[in-house]
Amino acid sequence: MSEKKKSADALKEFGEKIVRDIKAGKNPAIDLLVRGLSNVEFDKKSKTLILGKKMAQRTFFNVAHSKKFLQTVEVAKISKDLIEQGKHASLRDVFYMAKRTIPNTKINLVDEQAESDDVIEDLEVITTLSRENLNVNANKNGSVAGNVIIEDRGDTIDWSKMGSGGWSIPSNTEELKFKKVNVKYILYMEKAAVWERLHEDKFWEKQNCIIMSSQGQTTRGIRRLLQRLYEEHKLPIYVLTDLDPWGHYIYSVIKYGSINLAHISERMAIPGVRYLGIRVGDIDKYGLRKNLIQLNDNDTKRLKQIMEYDWFKDNKEWQKEFEAFKKLNAKAEIQALSAQGISFISNKYLPEKIKNQDFLD
Amino acid sequence: MSEKKKSADALKEFGEKIVRDIKAGKNPAIDLLVRGLSNVEFDKKSKTLILGKKMAQRTFFNVAHSKKFLQTVEVAKISKDLIEQGKHASLRDVFYMAKRTIPNTKINLVDEQAESDDVIEDLEVITTLSRENLNVNANKNGSVAGNVIIEDRGDTIDWSKMGSGGWSIPSNTEELKFKKVNVKYILYMEKAAVWERLHEDKFWEKQNCIIMSSQGQTTRGIRRLLQRLYEEHKLPIYVLTDLDPWGHYIYSVIKYGSINLAHISERMAIPGVRYLGIRVGDIDKYGLRKNLIQLNDNDTKRLKQIMEYDWFKDNKEWQKEFEAFKKLNAKAEIQALSAQGISFISNKYLPEKIKNQDFLD
Repeated sequence: MSEKKKSADALKEFGEKIVRDIKAGKNPAIDLLVRGLSNVEFDKKSKTLILGKKMAQRTFFNVAHSKKFLQTVEVAKISKDLIEQGKHASLRDVFYMAKRTIPNTKINLVDEQAESDDVIEDLEVITTLSRENLNVNANKNGSVAGNVIIEDRGDTIDWSKMGSGGWSIPSNTEELKFKKVNVKYILYMEKAAVWERLHEDKFWEKQNCIIMSSQGQTTRGIRRLLQRLYEEHKLPIYVLTDLDPWGHYIYSVIKYGSINLAHISERMAIPGVRYLGIRVGDIDKYGLRKNLIQLNDNDTKRLKQIMEYDWFKDNKEWQKEFEAFKKLNAKAEIQALSAQGISFISNKYLPEKIKNQDFLD
Repeated sequence: MSEKKKSADALKEFGEKIVRDIKAGKNPAIDLLVRGLSNVEFDKKSKTLILGKKMAQRTFFNVAHSKKFLQTVEVAKISKDLIEQGKHASLRDVFYMAKRTIPNTKINLVDEQAESDDVIEDLEVITTLSRENLNVNANKNGSVAGNVIIEDRGDTIDWSKMGSGGWSIPSNTEELKFKKVNVKYILYMEKAAVWERLHEDKFWEKQNCIIMSSQGQTTRGIRRLLQRLYEEHKLPIYVLTDLDPWGHYIYSVIKYGSINLAHISERMAIPGVRYLGIRVGDIDKYGLRKNLIQLNDNDTKRLKQIMEYDWFKDNKEWQKEFEAFKKLNAKAEIQALSAQGISFISNKYLPEKIKNQDFLD
C-alpha cells in the first residue's frame, strides 16, 4: 500500500470513529497516548526514547476538551485535503488554515501556532503517522555531497556533481529514492562552515563518504534522511560536533530521539550513530589547549542535566567523558582545529580518528 | 587578470608599503577610510550606501594602534596564505588562525572573534577587495531552482533538475559561471517554507523565473548571486517578504546596502530590485484582515527608524506605504495567504501582482 493511501486511510478511520460515536448516540471521543515527560521512557531494548502506556481521552461534550477536540478534527481535515491534493504545508501554513472563527461566535478555532502544532503532534500519536506523512513539513535546512545518486520528483540528482554548494536538503525526505549509494559511511556535522571546509578539501571523495550538515539543531528532514540511509543501506553514521553540552545533545537527539518527539522515535532515532565530535582526550593530542573556552553557568547546568539522562547514566564510557569534561571546565569548537592549519581537520584529525575507530557510543 | 592574481597583488602591495616605510626609517602606517556611521552616506547618484572620504591612519609606533596594526598584518598574511593554497576559511577559522600568543609576552594577538572580523572588514576597505576575494567566506544558507545551468568547481549543475530540495547556495558565489540563463525574472523570498510552497507548485516552471530563498537575513553569497544575475543577465529581481519592518529591512539591505558593509556596496547593493512583499493594500484585496498581528513596541520603533532612513525619506510611494502601515498598526505574514488555500499564493497572489506590476521601488 502506498504511503499516501496509508495516510489517507488512517485519517479516514479517525473520522469514521467519531461518526460511529455520534450515530450510536455516544459522546464523541478521541483516545490517544499521553505525550510529555510523564509518559516518556527510555526503552533499553530499542535504545530509544518511547512513549509509555498512559492513555488519555478527549471528548466533545466536555467544556475542558471541546475546543481541542474541534482543533484535532479541523487539522485532520486540513491534512486529509493536503494528502488528496498531493500538496505539503508548513506548520505556519496549517496554523493559518485552521485559524478561522467558529460560526456564530467570536471564538477562533486557534489563536496561536502552538495550538495547531500541538494538535499535529497529537495526530501523529493518534494515527501513528509522522507529520511528514500527514503532509505537514518542518524546517528546511542543510546540504549534502557524496557518491550517491537519488531520484526525487522525477529528477535524477548526483550528489557528487553539485559544485561547491551541494544538494539542498528538503524538509521532507520521505519520497526520494536512492538509486546508487556507493559510500562507506556518513559524516554528519552541526556546522555548515565545517561542511564547506571538508567539501573544498574533497574529503568525501578521498574518504568515499557522504558529508551532510545542517546549522545547529538537526531538522526532521535530515534525521529521516540519515535514518533511511542507515536502515536501507546499512551505512555507519558519525556525528561531528563541538566539545560542549549542546554538541552532546545534538548527538543524543539523533541517536536516542527527543522527549517531545518520543512518539515518533521509531522513525527518527538512529541507535547506531557514533560520536566523532571533539573529545576531552583530543585537547592535548591535537593542540587545542590554548583555544579552550571556559564553561559558563548555562553550560555547566546543561552538562549536569545531560549526564543524568537515563541513556547516558548507565554508559560508563560517556560518564568518564563527562567527568573529564567537568574537570576540564572548558569547551572546544571544531574550528579550533584550524589553528593547526586550515585543512588539519581533513588531512589529519578526521582520518586518524576514523582509522583508529576513536568513537564514543 | 584573474581575481586570484588581483587579490594576491593587492595584499602584496599592502605588505610592500609597510616594508617601504620601514626601510625609509618611517613609522609604518596603514591608511584607510573610516568605516561606521560617521562616514556612511546615501549616494543619490548610485542609489546605494557608500563610505564618505574621512580617512584614518593606523601606525605601528602608537600604543593605541600597535595591536590593531599587528592584527591587520597577521590577517592579511592569513588571507594571502589562503589565496596561495586556493582554500577558503570561515570567519571563525580566521579567528582561530590569528589567535596566537605574541612571542615573549602573555598577550594574544586576538582574544575575541569580533577583533578578527573587524580587521577583515578593514582589509576590504584597504585593498578594495571583498571578503570573498580575500578567501574568507560568510555563512552558507539558502536554496535555488529555475531554468538555469551553471558551472561550479568543474560540475555542470542544472537548477531545473534538483528534485524537491534545489541547489544549495554556497557561502561564496564569486567563481561559479552561468552557462544558460533562460528565465524572465528572479523571485527572492525570506522564508524557506515559502520557497518549498512555490517549488511544489512548479511556480518557477509556470512563470519561467528563478526562485531563491535564504532564511531570515540574506547571506552575502546570495546577495552576490543576485547581483551577478542582475548585472550579467539583466534580470529583474522581486523581493517577497512579510509586511513588517523586518521584511522592509531585508528589502532595504538587498537594494541599498547596509551601514556596516557600506564600503562594499558596489559589490552587494542592487538598486534595481523591487519590493513584491505584502503591502497594506493587499490586506483587504486578498482577505488578510482576519490574520493580522498587532505591532509590538519593538516593531513600532523599528518602523519609525526605517521611515527616517535617507533612502526612504524622500520616497513618496514608500512614505505613503509606511504611513498606511502605521495606521494599520499590524503586520501580516506571507503564509497568512494560505488561509485562502494552500496554493493561493502561487495561483493568484503572485501572478496577479507580477502581471499588474504591483511593485514598490
